[in-house]
Amino acid sequence: MTDLSAFAFNADGLIPAIAQQHDTGEVLMAAWMNREALAETLATGRVCYYSRSRQALWRKGETSGQTQTLIELRLDCDGDTILLLVNQTGVACHTGRRTCFFRAMRDGELVEIAKPEIAPEALYK
Amino acid sequence: MTDLSAFAFNADGLIPAIAQQHDTGEVLMAAWMNREALAETLATGRVCYYSRSRQALWRKGETSGQTQTLIELRLDCDGDTILLLVNQTGVACHTGRRTCFFRAMRDGELVEIAKPEIAPEALYK
Repeated sequence: MTDLSAFAFNADGLIPAIAQQHDTGEVLMAAWMNREALAETLATGRVCYYSRSRQALWRKGETSGQTQTLIELRLDCDGDTILLLVNQTGVACHTGRRTCFFRAMRDGELVEIAKPEIAPEALYK
Repeated sequence: MTDLSAFAFNADGLIPAIAQQHDTGEVLMAAWMNREALAETLATGRVCYYSRSRQALWRKGETSGQTQTLIELRLDCDGDTILLLVNQTGVACHTGRRTCFFRAMRDGELVEIAKPEIAPEALYK
């Protein structure tokens, strides 16, 4: 039985998780997990988050096919943030971009620094 | 004047920020910013967080000397998480380790995968 006592869930029972592509180091996205999502991720090796808007488990890629395979799960010093080293199939972002962090602040305004690789309509048929 | 309207602060006026070493891709830490910390970071190029425990601005390195210089600030698709590409002086973690994510889940338990590079006593004299 996996011991999750070191994981500090917040008052809503959630903990933030950052997904990073394991080989390139690219930060792909950040989302939330509850205890059940964390346990499922560790048990299956497929990343599962908790969707705050849907209030339900969110098995990454179950609709879009853009799954995340867990390579390693890390926890920070105070136990309140998870780092997921993953292998991302296709794209992480619902906009069809590889990463959700596709806007950068330059000269006081946000500019788009990455284009969609897949049309969002193709992701959510 | 920098436009911060795309940044979605939560009900407590905070937004999570992930710090990544700009050249190696190492994820160093995650913390929170309020609007003031974000504005100061963008204005000065020195990363400033908001400490929830101290309820005050937290100019990274002001006590320890382990500062973060901002290389680029990115925002995710839904505007509720910041990615900071930084140049970290020394170590990011208060334990004296380069990264706060020094524990990995292996065979159902957390194991330490990095040692302190600086004694914590030397950081906080």
